[in-house]
Amino acid sequence: MRLSIDVHLDYGIAGDADVLLQIEAAAMPDQRIEEQSLTIWSDSPIRAVPGEDGIGQRCWARGHGRLTAVYRAVVKVERPVVALGAYGTTPPRLLPGDVTAYLMPSRYCQSDRFEGFVAREFPGLDGGALAAALSAWVGNALDYRMGSSSGETTALDTFASRSGVCRDYAHLLVALARAGGIPARCVSAYAPGVDPPDFHAVAELWLDGAWRLVDPTGMASCGDIARVCIGRDATDIAFMTVFGQATLWTQTVRVRALDDETA
Amino acid sequence: MRLSIDVHLDYGIAGDADVLLQIEAAAMPDQRIEEQSLTIWSDSPIRAVPGEDGIGQRCWARGHGRLTAVYRAVVKVERPVVALGAYGTTPPRLLPGDVTAYLMPSRYCQSDRFEGFVAREFPGLDGGALAAALSAWVGNALDYRMGSSSGETTALDTFASRSGVCRDYAHLLVALARAGGIPARCVSAYAPGVDPPDFHAVAELWLDGAWRLVDPTGMASCGDIARVCIGRDATDIAFMTVFGQATLWTQTVRVRALDDETA
Amino acid sequence: MRLSIDVHLDYGIAGDADVLLQIEAAAMPDQRIEEQSLTIWSDSPIRAVPGEDGIGQRCWARGHGRLTAVYRAVVKVERPVVALGAYGTTPPRLLPGDVTAYLMPSRYCQSDRFEGFVAREFPGLDGGALAAALSAWVGNALDYRMGSSSGETTALDTFASRSGVCRDYAHLLVALARAGGIPARCVSAYAPGVDPPDFHAVAELWLDGAWRLVDPTGMASCGDIARVCIGRDATDIAFMTVFGQATLWTQTVRVRALDDETA
Amino acid sequence: MRLSIDVHLDYGIAGDADVLLQIEAAAMPDQRIEEQSLTIWSDSPIRAVPGEDGIGQRCWARGHGRLTAVYRAVVKVERPVVALGAYGTTPPRLLPGDVTAYLMPSRYCQSDRFEGFVAREFPGLDGGALAAALSAWVGNALDYRMGSSSGETTALDTFASRSGVCRDYAHLLVALARAGGIPARCVSAYAPGVDPPDFHAVAELWLDGAWRLVDPTGMASCGDIARVCIGRDATDIAFMTVFGQATLWTQTVRVRALDDETA
Repeated sequence: MRLSIDVHLDYGIAGDADVLLQIEAAAMPDQRIEEQSLTIWSDSPIRAVPGEDGIGQRCWARGHGRLTAVYRAVVKVERPVVALGAYGTTPPRLLPGDVTAYLMPSRYCQSDRFEGFVAREFPGLDGGALAAALSAWVGNALDYRMGSSSGETTALDTFASRSGVCRDYAHLLVALARAGGIPARCVSAYAPGVDPPDFHAVAELWLDGAWRLVDPTGMASCGDIARVCIGRDATDIAFMTVFGQATLWTQTVRVRALDDETA
Repeated sequence: MRLSIDVHLDYGIAGDADVLLQIEAAAMPDQRIEEQSLTIWSDSPIRAVPGEDGIGQRCWARGHGRLTAVYRAVVKVERPVVALGAYGTTPPRLLPGDVTAYLMPSRYCQSDRFEGFVAREFPGLDGGALAAALSAWVGNALDYRMGSSSGETTALDTFASRSGVCRDYAHLLVALARAGGIPARCVSAYAPGVDPPDFHAVAELWLDGAWRLVDPTGMASCGDIARVCIGRDATDIAFMTVFGQATLWTQTVRVRALDDETA
Repeated sequence: MRLSIDVHLDYGIAGDADVLLQIEAAAMPDQRIEEQSLTIWSDSPIRAVPGEDGIGQRCWARGHGRLTAVYRAVVKVERPVVALGAYGTTPPRLLPGDVTAYLMPSRYCQSDRFEGFVAREFPGLDGGALAAALSAWVGNALDYRMGSSSGETTALDTFASRSGVCRDYAHLLVALARAGGIPARCVSAYAPGVDPPDFHAVAELWLDGAWRLVDPTGMASCGDIARVCIGRDATDIAFMTVFGQATLWTQTVRVRALDDETA
Repeated sequence: MRLSIDVHLDYGIAGDADVLLQIEAAAMPDQRIEEQSLTIWSDSPIRAVPGEDGIGQRCWARGHGRLTAVYRAVVKVERPVVALGAYGTTPPRLLPGDVTAYLMPSRYCQSDRFEGFVAREFPGLDGGALAAALSAWVGNALDYRMGSSSGETTALDTFASRSGVCRDYAHLLVALARAGGIPARCVSAYAPGVDPPDFHAVAELWLDGAWRLVDPTGMASCGDIARVCIGRDATDIAFMTVFGQATLWTQTVRVRALDDETA
């Protein structure tokens, strides 16, 4: 699928502030960037650094009273959709080194707290079978409701409130997967069909030797998702981090599936 | 049922410290104190004050290097066992004033976080029917496991870990009940059959105009329980609070059902 | 001082919901209610129950689509202003029974966590001298800043962020006082000079046998404050608790010192 | 300085469990491994993977009833001691990509909560001057006390309790540094003079283009410290993570400065 992405950010900045943006689709084998332009009105040079684990990039800018950024891209996503349940199991001790960190609990995905729940409710399952069961469970157990959570909301909170937005779905699935011995990370992404249109957050689980995209909200098929960046949880994948004070003026995110994808 | 209660506490105290004890069975219509003696080796006069909501009493002592207390009692419990499901529903606005506080979230029973879970998983239930369903759910969902929790463990933690001791069962039931509109409080108690023998913690739910004892661990029938004191959560019902530093030396709690109760 | 109080609350209610209001000034020896009217548009009878510890009252109503309440009162406050430092010390073991609960940590005032700070930074102080030092410390250590906190903010958060609103000041002082062995509670109140005009929150510390009002924000002298209700922390003293979903439409709180108080 | 390191771990394992060890001193330019042997009694092959950011290594083993590991090494540390205050300031937007993540809050180092404290108490300071002030502040503000914290203790807790062990000192310094715009990470290390002898935890702050070791406990000079691994907080640098249940049988850590270092 080919995705057309249009993002417009306009923020007020109190005085001067360094700003870290993660809004560009990442160039990866399963998502090729066909066209791309990022324009940032910044009063000092823009500087790009690699994203977490070398995926995508972060862009540093400096706002002076205001920060405006416009991003446009066309991304061709070619990613086979495979049922999670088909994947096998990798015991922790056979994981690659750079995957190991994604077994660990993190601030918003306190997986150590969920070990009892996963062991008790999904006995005998591991690997792909467990991943499929957890993903389905999260999708069914939660209500998608705007405004039902905040930037402070953790997987533990969502587990009890049984509601949230895409970030909360991803956090809970990631926490449960790690609790079940499956490395898991959060992904900032673009996807059509996200309602209301916005940056999207999904999960990636390490199964059978590779990261597998999953959208526990069910809003997007994994074949329609363009990753921006990845990380342990929302801390790492924020689209904008301001080292100072900022006020939202306008922000729009539009993601469309292009008609001509058959071409 | 008549209960024989023997408690022996022996703690080391660093220097001097005021100590608050809540270890005496409360005199109440459904539990009569037939015999009772409390001996505390304290280097200043012992002082008793009423417990929370006037139930039972707290006893202030002062430890100097050491605090030793021996409590012995025989309590006759006469409390009919009624299935919770038989009780009706009281809307919040018709609750008595002194019951209202037990609808509120507290430190270890963060009921506001569980409203989503209760609404989603127990739709259409309220009052006694909801109380019965929640109590059964807690009993089934948790594993009783010594050492699986600490004094910091909250209902939210227990909800995810799916294990705990009596205190955790009580906290979770109290949190869920409040989330469902049922006033609920924690109760420190003596009961035979607690294994290993110790102070016990259970819950009381306000249904049909009165507080109803429930032991979500299933260890004790509500007809066998002698209350010590009540409160919003473990904060209020600790058997000992030391305003200084203490070290456990020995502590034994023995509760036996007396054979001659037919007499 | 005589205070004129005008409150207007207008909230949208989703469907029907029981609503608990705590907005009436409490009749107490040091604050006499000269005139008072509370009008609530509710579709079921209004019901008043005593507030926490019998201070003031809570009012139950039922909203149907909307809840509107208007409260007007004139309150004569006669309360001598005494420097906290002049009060003596009461050891915990000599406290009255109903004061004991206010030594305990609570959800937003986790006093057990602050014992190290208080012992280390205020060595050798207790009673009134400690209360005065803690109150001055809170006033100096924090910046009053609207929007810097939320309903989830605890004393621990405020201690690190060093900013907050009246509720946060009160929580932090209460937590520190309890950590230092001084019973402390939160008070919902009316006071002139609160900017922006709103319900106010202050603290009461138990010193020399009575509760002493303190406003750690310094916005109000304790001689100008009319209490509404008291409690362990914000949980107990909310001006409105809705057992359902509500949306703020308009809310105004006006408190004026009357010119004719010399009359 | 040359350090002789002897570690002996002996743990009981319930059934089988994968175990992740991080106990080997890392080979780095400023600490050369002169001799080293790691012996693990594991019933499946030992597997080493790189540590976080490629520093040191993690070793996977599998315990069956028991896990025993013996580590011995001689490490030559050559690291000039430079006063932190001498280092300059790097604005966030000029940081290298792999350093950026260490500006972010993490589970035990919730730096976002401390921005108010750092801004208010250390006005006008940044870079090395701020690092020196924060490190001195942490050293002075805390009491080193065994048993005063647990594996759940966060920087926010330590900030209020004003006590802790090396892990807590490191967490608090890391949180404060990040709050002040200085990238900071936690380091597991060996150092002589740690009392009681144990694994040690210190901090590294990114100043003037490199990571600078700091021991906020003051137990070790940065010239005497051999790093094992680094990470965002204690989550990443645990010496042992068991994917199952383990019981400590014996554990000894001995670190000595060798006499012949003048040779």
